[in-house]
Amino acid sequence: MRVDAQPTRSIRPAPGRDAVLVIDQRWLPHRFVIERLTDAAAVQRAIREMWVRGAPLIGATAAYGMALQAGADAGDGALETSAAGFVAARPTAVNLAWAVRRMLQRLLALPLAERAAAAWNEADTIAEEDVMVNAAIGRHGLALISDIAARRPGPVQVLTHCNAGWLATVDWGTATAPIYQAHAAGVPVHVWVDETRPRNQGASLTAWELANEGVPHTVIVDNAGGHLMQRGQVDLVIVGCDRVTARGDVCNKIGTYLKALAAHDNGVPFYVAMPISTLDLSLSDGVAEIPIEERPAREVTHLTGRAANGEVIDVQLVPDGSSATNPSFDVTPARLVSGLVTEQGVVAPEVGALRRLMEQT
Amino acid sequence: MRVDAQPTRSIRPAPGRDAVLVIDQRWLPHRFVIERLTDAAAVQRAIREMWVRGAPLIGATAAYGMALQAGADAGDGALETSAAGFVAARPTAVNLAWAVRRMLQRLLALPLAERAAAAWNEADTIAEEDVMVNAAIGRHGLALISDIAARRPGPVQVLTHCNAGWLATVDWGTATAPIYQAHAAGVPVHVWVDETRPRNQGASLTAWELANEGVPHTVIVDNAGGHLMQRGQVDLVIVGCDRVTARGDVCNKIGTYLKALAAHDNGVPFYVAMPISTLDLSLSDGVAEIPIEERPAREVTHLTGRAANGEVIDVQLVPDGSSATNPSFDVTPARLVSGLVTEQGVVAPEVGALRRLMEQT
Repeated sequence: MRVDAQPTRSIRPAPGRDAVLVIDQRWLPHRFVIERLTDAAAVQRAIREMWVRGAPLIGATAAYGMALQAGADAGDGALETSAAGFVAARPTAVNLAWAVRRMLQRLLALPLAERAAAAWNEADTIAEEDVMVNAAIGRHGLALISDIAARRPGPVQVLTHCNAGWLATVDWGTATAPIYQAHAAGVPVHVWVDETRPRNQGASLTAWELANEGVPHTVIVDNAGGHLMQRGQVDLVIVGCDRVTARGDVCNKIGTYLKALAAHDNGVPFYVAMPISTLDLSLSDGVAEIPIEERPAREVTHLTGRAANGEVIDVQLVPDGSSATNPSFDVTPARLVSGLVTEQGVVAPEVGALRRLMEQT
Repeated sequence: MRVDAQPTRSIRPAPGRDAVLVIDQRWLPHRFVIERLTDAAAVQRAIREMWVRGAPLIGATAAYGMALQAGADAGDGALETSAAGFVAARPTAVNLAWAVRRMLQRLLALPLAERAAAAWNEADTIAEEDVMVNAAIGRHGLALISDIAARRPGPVQVLTHCNAGWLATVDWGTATAPIYQAHAAGVPVHVWVDETRPRNQGASLTAWELANEGVPHTVIVDNAGGHLMQRGQVDLVIVGCDRVTARGDVCNKIGTYLKALAAHDNGVPFYVAMPISTLDLSLSDGVAEIPIEERPAREVTHLTGRAANGEVIDVQLVPDGSSATNPSFDVTPARLVSGLVTEQGVVAPEVGALRRLMEQT
């Protein structure tokens, strides 16, 4: 997608294949900083310190990091040490471990001299696959938006939570892909952007993406979505997901469940953009079975913003005597989900449909 | 309640009856600033600029402001001009207009020489009535908490939204009164404090109150409450209200509706602390009939906090190109409300019960 009218992606290999270029997302939306990472250790740091975030992007970033490693020292020991370093950088990220394992299997099977070139190709392939999956999700989601647009005049009002945008993937995003495709196709769309406390990925990242793409949007606090739905101001909710169980329970950013309840209470369709790789058929009851990451309390007690002097700083929000807790995800039961928008089409959140989807893939 | 272990109230007449002392709540929780207001204009400014907020406290503050006016010039014209100034300071505040009208009616009926003394007495009475109403709400709410405590060991887990605390009233608060009374009675209680974006009254004010009172509590983002209820970590929700309709629909701080939905979905009792004065029998369908105040977008796009250097400053959260909207209240339909905790006892959110309550009062 575009930044300052220039087409860009969240990650790119440098032209000389001696570095990988990423956006240091910690400075968004206040500063657009591209960092040039030249070795595996630098890439690990960027993952660990959340310069890059979002499961698909972390996977692609680690793949390019393995390519940098292969360019420097492609010996079995060096690759394996580096792989372990990547997995340790964000231990709960499923895509990260998957991408690193895929790179390692591909490279260890090759003669030493072929590994560096093969590594860059494999990383490119991982990145391109992500782009294609999201583009396909976008096409299937576009149909949902177009259907609403065809029924009445005015923009289709879409609410989204967190950032399941191109900054979380290589391009397009998952939940945002249908929005970008609708906008590109001339289907009028307006997006309600949930701020998404505590890390404010909606206000910081989704709003920034939409502003750069010229998509009409309005930031709202996480508290406001139910009220807007009661007043008929939301046509459709679409969110991303971190894990989906065999029966269609959806684990996503904390607060997703509250929006799903409000959508259900007001007859608003609630869709989840889901790359099929996010499906975990080993789990069934999401509330009971999915472990929820507790992140640092500081993300709740403090917040990063831009001061009047332009400095990007942290401010404290709570009294010194108060503690906080920070569960990062919640689980939306399948009964509240209208459909899962996958690269293969829209699928019911139901065990039979999800097993068939997995068998076809 | 207490601040730094000293008993205090949100408003007090100065001992010499030549001023009124209020907390400048804009600096909380970072600084505890008591301001001495010596004339009606200063009191109007404190109301207009939200040094004081919360319907009952605004009413009491205006009453004391009228007393200051009567001390300076108790002539009919001066009192009427001052009264109009108070009402204009926060035009949508029902209690403010009510308190000013009550003061005016009382004073205009008296000879000039008696007005100043009578004004201080009437303002004291208004303040004391508020304290008694809240203390009674606390006793009835305490019974709900004690019932849960009697059924199992461990603290009763209460979730609250926004600040319906003593800072919003003269003392006790509405939603917090049962919590304070439980704590004082030795009933173990732990409070989940919703941050309450956009103005963060939970993280700033409720947490500060609870910390000063020694009540165990944990701040959470507004997104987290549903997840905690799914995991069985909330026994009871209790919130305040700004207006309640004849059939029991509850208008309260934006986001209340989402918590009510989550409570309903998880079988968690959802109570609303309601001084009977908040009941508006002229309305029935709250979603359709209650106008919702839109406050400035800046409350969403910016946030106030304490920087590392101790300064209390505003930071911007959204990209320069993004706008925001800020509906300040939402309506929780009566079907989601377990009961209204009033000074006369716990009442069903149902038209017959509410009419009987009004007739008894």
